[in-house]
Amino acid sequence: MISETTLDPENWDDVSDVFHQAIDHCIGMMKNVRERPIWRQVPSESTLRQHGNIPTEEHSLNDLFTYFQDSMLPYSNGNTHPRFFGWVHGSGNIAGVMGEMLAAFMNSNVGGRDHAAVYIERQVLDWCKQIFSFPEDSSGVVTTGTSMGTMIALTVARNTHAGGDVQKLGLQGLPARLVGYTSSEAHCSVAKTFDLLGLGQDALRRFPVDEHYRMDIEALKRSIAADRAGGLRPIAVVASAGTVNTGAIDDLCSIADICRDQNIWMHVDGAFGGLAVLAPEYKESLAAIARADSIAFDFHKWMHVPYDAGCVLIKNEAAHRKAFSSRVDYLTSLNDGLAGGEPWFCEYGPELSRGFRALKVWFTIQAYGIQRFADLISQNCRQASYLGELVKCSSNLQLLAEVTMNIVCFRYFIPGVPEDELNELNKTIVTELQTQGIAAPSTTTLAGRTAIRVAITNHRTVTADLDLLVDEVCRLGRTRGCK
Amino acid sequence: MISETTLDPENWDDVSDVFHQAIDHCIGMMKNVRERPIWRQVPSESTLRQHGNIPTEEHSLNDLFTYFQDSMLPYSNGNTHPRFFGWVHGSGNIAGVMGEMLAAFMNSNVGGRDHAAVYIERQVLDWCKQIFSFPEDSSGVVTTGTSMGTMIALTVARNTHAGGDVQKLGLQGLPARLVGYTSSEAHCSVAKTFDLLGLGQDALRRFPVDEHYRMDIEALKRSIAADRAGGLRPIAVVASAGTVNTGAIDDLCSIADICRDQNIWMHVDGAFGGLAVLAPEYKESLAAIARADSIAFDFHKWMHVPYDAGCVLIKNEAAHRKAFSSRVDYLTSLNDGLAGGEPWFCEYGPELSRGFRALKVWFTIQAYGIQRFADLISQNCRQASYLGELVKCSSNLQLLAEVTMNIVCFRYFIPGVPEDELNELNKTIVTELQTQGIAAPSTTTLAGRTAIRVAITNHRTVTADLDLLVDEVCRLGRTRGCK
Repeated sequence: MISETTLDPENWDDVSDVFHQAIDHCIGMMKNVRERPIWRQVPSESTLRQHGNIPTEEHSLNDLFTYFQDSMLPYSNGNTHPRFFGWVHGSGNIAGVMGEMLAAFMNSNVGGRDHAAVYIERQVLDWCKQIFSFPEDSSGVVTTGTSMGTMIALTVARNTHAGGDVQKLGLQGLPARLVGYTSSEAHCSVAKTFDLLGLGQDALRRFPVDEHYRMDIEALKRSIAADRAGGLRPIAVVASAGTVNTGAIDDLCSIADICRDQNIWMHVDGAFGGLAVLAPEYKESLAAIARADSIAFDFHKWMHVPYDAGCVLIKNEAAHRKAFSSRVDYLTSLNDGLAGGEPWFCEYGPELSRGFRALKVWFTIQAYGIQRFADLISQNCRQASYLGELVKCSSNLQLLAEVTMNIVCFRYFIPGVPEDELNELNKTIVTELQTQGIAAPSTTTLAGRTAIRVAITNHRTVTADLDLLVDEVCRLGRTRGCK
Repeated sequence: MISETTLDPENWDDVSDVFHQAIDHCIGMMKNVRERPIWRQVPSESTLRQHGNIPTEEHSLNDLFTYFQDSMLPYSNGNTHPRFFGWVHGSGNIAGVMGEMLAAFMNSNVGGRDHAAVYIERQVLDWCKQIFSFPEDSSGVVTTGTSMGTMIALTVARNTHAGGDVQKLGLQGLPARLVGYTSSEAHCSVAKTFDLLGLGQDALRRFPVDEHYRMDIEALKRSIAADRAGGLRPIAVVASAGTVNTGAIDDLCSIADICRDQNIWMHVDGAFGGLAVLAPEYKESLAAIARADSIAFDFHKWMHVPYDAGCVLIKNEAAHRKAFSSRVDYLTSLNDGLAGGEPWFCEYGPELSRGFRALKVWFTIQAYGIQRFADLISQNCRQASYLGELVKCSSNLQLLAEVTMNIVCFRYFIPGVPEDELNELNKTIVTELQTQGIAAPSTTTLAGRTAIRVAITNHRTVTADLDLLVDEVCRLGRTRGCK
């Protein structure tokens, strides 16, 4: 007889008690998030900082939750706070939390097979096709985020336009070198993807942008012509639907025309900005996403799904499946039973085991309805516009880029002070805003100038938060600038 | 004034009520999982199967939870059940569920910056280094699973041994073609990765295996020599620590010797089997993982962390960081404040936004202590051995591969019946086991024979479940075989 043990607890009631306690505490935190400092550094004496040995003893869930409550939760990265404006972070939402919690209990592997989670992911993908006016027979997959989505899309683009069987032969077996195109303002994940796929960063031509930070379309045309003349093989253009620096939207319509005429794959990086197609004021400039071959975007940004969750949609389902399908003996599909459910999601991406990430997206969209996200996106853009006006009205502040969407880049300015000192001053202001727990913008550099970068993808922000931000930037600028 | 709305509920108490109700229901399900059928097909009339329009209306969390409870939870893929033996799935654990739930509330983006989640992921990685005797200054990152871990590791391997600046120039800019090596029993994700990285599947030499399903070491040596003589550039050997078909462990020591002598990257695919290094009976055969350049493995298999969670460890931290680091203007690190916390995890993988996946791993290891996992791995292997004996003792069953770890491949056998009919019969048996809700093994093919494949990575399985399985296979075999 084998002596048998399990990870299940002897006493489920005790476990249940800790869960209920955790729920009460965490909902309380969410409810009162505005009262907390936005960020506090993990204390130097915190055991979080210790590099310890792997635990050999058991710890009760009670003790572990208490540790979480005291040592982790107060030291989060702050993106659930109404004055978090750093990088592009979503703020989370309670329906999404419920989805994630239920997915953890259910513990489904959505790599394939025939079970409820597969159907939910298909529904979510159908909804996404509707958002971007992609055909019903497009394929897609829920990803950890846009970086992974772009990687999947560009793999299919590469394989489709390689001019040879790159899956079998590799890039080194192809007759011509492959090249792709994007703008200098494109997200760094595009270059990382070129690198990863073996194309190399040199194979990604990055064009300068116009005064609105949009890809120079004439440069794109010239470059494609020159590359073709030089015997190279253009495979893809990556257009930005909302650049990370300024929120600029490339001229998607012109890019779609060029890609159609040149038989090149058009991929749209819509990480946060893509979903602005839901908002009336961006519907027109983003409508040409429907003409792209693929789009990748995030649910964890402007849809506030808890991290991480993104998506890629691809029009050519067959090419998509061909790029990732690999049904070996132990993955053989059977007609009936659990091993049915064709096609399997593992045939549309690199991952074979896949969590039930789609459930938190499903809960989020079902709970609020898609119109709410349209309204919130518009709201954030109006708030950015409001902040832009505040900046323009302040003699000490300088707007560094046109406010095109939800991003405001500005700086504290003192006439006569050298640029490098201004750069340092603005970095200090941002650091102080964070360490004093007031607000969390991030920084970026535009034409050599350090900008305080405020990206409003936050459903908790109200205009009073922006008034406060401006006041505090000016206060810190005055204090620090006088040294 | 901007009219402002938020996703936060007006009444937090209502939300709290649904969460408490959900906790009670889900814990009840977990407690009574043995009483449920292992799998039920989503009914043909279920709304899960409908391709509907994107919701425009709000739905209460109460309604959504009720729908989940009635229409999703009963139709899971069954891997939390004690008689789930399909593919290689973990069974989940309640501490991991708590970790995932708390991570969803906290909603951290662990791409970088300075906050609690970053420290927890570092601790988890430190523990993993201890498990595999990797040096403290190794690098690593928590991934969605081994496929992603292998992709990260082989990217670093490719860049390290390319013989040129492949990140800049791409594979097409290199002087020699790159090749890698694995066995015919290696997981399909290895070939998918070669494909993805632009190396092509032909560049992956797959050797036949010996009678124990282990890589033929002499073939490996000959192939490396032949490739070098042919002007090709060997970059990596991928060794299996537990193949998916039979649980075979390659001769890691000999492979490590060859890789050292030949200056080739050694990567170990330890998806499920790697963690068996914790168990005394596998310590020796897996010890040479410590000599590898990288290992990828899953937490969601033999550590029962809720899906998805895996890990990759890489000895050469500098090469790892160089492969993925891309610190552009908007990701500039500042000395103080939230933008501190060097290095950032996004510098060690393709993803820039990253969920707090490490928390469910941390909770799981803390709750049980690492010794429990060693015990459970041994337990599952003893159970597999027990099942192997049962098969050997039954005149109607035939063992199709040596039981080397936790996997038992066998079939129902009727003397004189042609092989193709036996194959169909065994597929039918597996389907019936699933559709009748009894047990969920999967199938594979070994030397042309369809095998009933039982992989025991399940902390809820007891020997009585294996007795039942054998009885039911024989019953179904008798019934179906008489047609």
